Amino acid sequence: MNVLPSNVEKLISLLQKLPGLGPKSAARIAMYLLKGHKSFTVELGKVLSDLKEEIVYCSSCNNIASEDPCVICSNSQRDKSLVCVVEGPLDVMAFENSTDFDGVYHVLGGVISPVNGIGPEELTINGLIQRLKRSNIKEIILATNPNIEGEATAMYIRQEIENSKFELKDLQITRLARGLPTGADLEYADKTTLKQAFDGRTKF
Amino acid sequence: MNVLPSNVEKLISLLQKLPGLGPKSAARIAMYLLKGHKSFTVELGKVLSDLKEEIVYCSSCNNIASEDPCVICSNSQRDKSLVCVVEGPLDVMAFENSTDFDGVYHVLGGVISPVNGIGPEELTINGLIQRLKRSNIKEIILATNPNIEGEATAMYIRQEIENSKFELKDLQITRLARGLPTGADLEYADKTTLKQAFDGRTKF
Repeated sequence: MNVLPSNVEKLISLLQKLPGLGPKSAARIAMYLLKGHKSFTVELGKVLSDLKEEIVYCSSCNNIASEDPCVICSNSQRDKSLVCVVEGPLDVMAFENSTDFDGVYHVLGGVISPVNGIGPEELTINGLIQRLKRSNIKEIILATNPNIEGEATAMYIRQEIENSKFELKDLQITRLARGLPTGADLEYADKTTLKQAFDGRTKF
Repeated sequence: MNVLPSNVEKLISLLQKLPGLGPKSAARIAMYLLKGHKSFTVELGKVLSDLKEEIVYCSSCNNIASEDPCVICSNSQRDKSLVCVVEGPLDVMAFENSTDFDGVYHVLGGVISPVNGIGPEELTINGLIQRLKRSNIKEIILATNPNIEGEATAMYIRQEIENSKFELKDLQITRLARGLPTGADLEYADKTTLKQAFDGRTKF
């Protein structure tokens, strides 16, 4: 028997579709919203309804933005010859918050993942190759996630760059360092990480 | 530096206020919404904006409902002399889904919690006492959660009922059985639960 009002049922079923939320957490959020101030739900509702209207994709780096080109690509202080290739907008945010990287980005929009039906053509790899041909780029940092899909995507991109016919001699392809994360415990480090940390040891 | 569009930042900050969501999960949900179909965000936005408009509180049991009285209180098949007192609407749903309880409910709207500034007057305890005086109720099942706050609230309600001046002789006050949950492991059961299961053992 349906004891909850239909719009509350609907809200719970929609919330359940969001990543990381199950039936219980969706119901808990719905109850929180019902108990809270009307202004909050109305505000959240408005932001969601208008979300896609106010978003554009930067035609240069493919990041989400309010204007095209995005604030990074349109910034004359940024070094356009240095391109950091990332999976999504949150990776751009992570780099901006943690590093002093002053180049520009290229957002792939995901990783190659046959299981999820995502092939190279679903990503902006072609756009990256075009960008390489068009601009004078000195270094490409392949900053996909250090997991199987991220690695495979990085390898695919390297191959695509090498296969394309333009002059490569000035282009460096790099990737992020592998090793132990800060605060890690040697004892609990996985084999691959420890091997990579050992193989890549640096002068102290 | 703000690399995300301002409405995405806003969405993430609003989502973070929801229970169980931190900065990372809020950002992940925002990215999911951005990647997904516009119809989904618009639909979710509409449900949220209209949420409070379409909700009423049942004047009898205080549960959320589409109409007053709610479907349970207005159902002539339900035994109005049996009242199950619960903390919130989700508890009503849990009872309806798991038990064959055919009485009616009384939704408290929370528990007494001095830490969170919730006193008895924030709950519908007064309404429950009035309901007892008005209707011919035979049994009150105090079904607050089996934790400190739920217990304290149940004890407070029992006291309030006993302190009120009306005739009590026909009224039974009960609470849910305590013991081992199905599928539990004796070895890992906490002391209180095991003691309650032992003390309350039943004929087999």
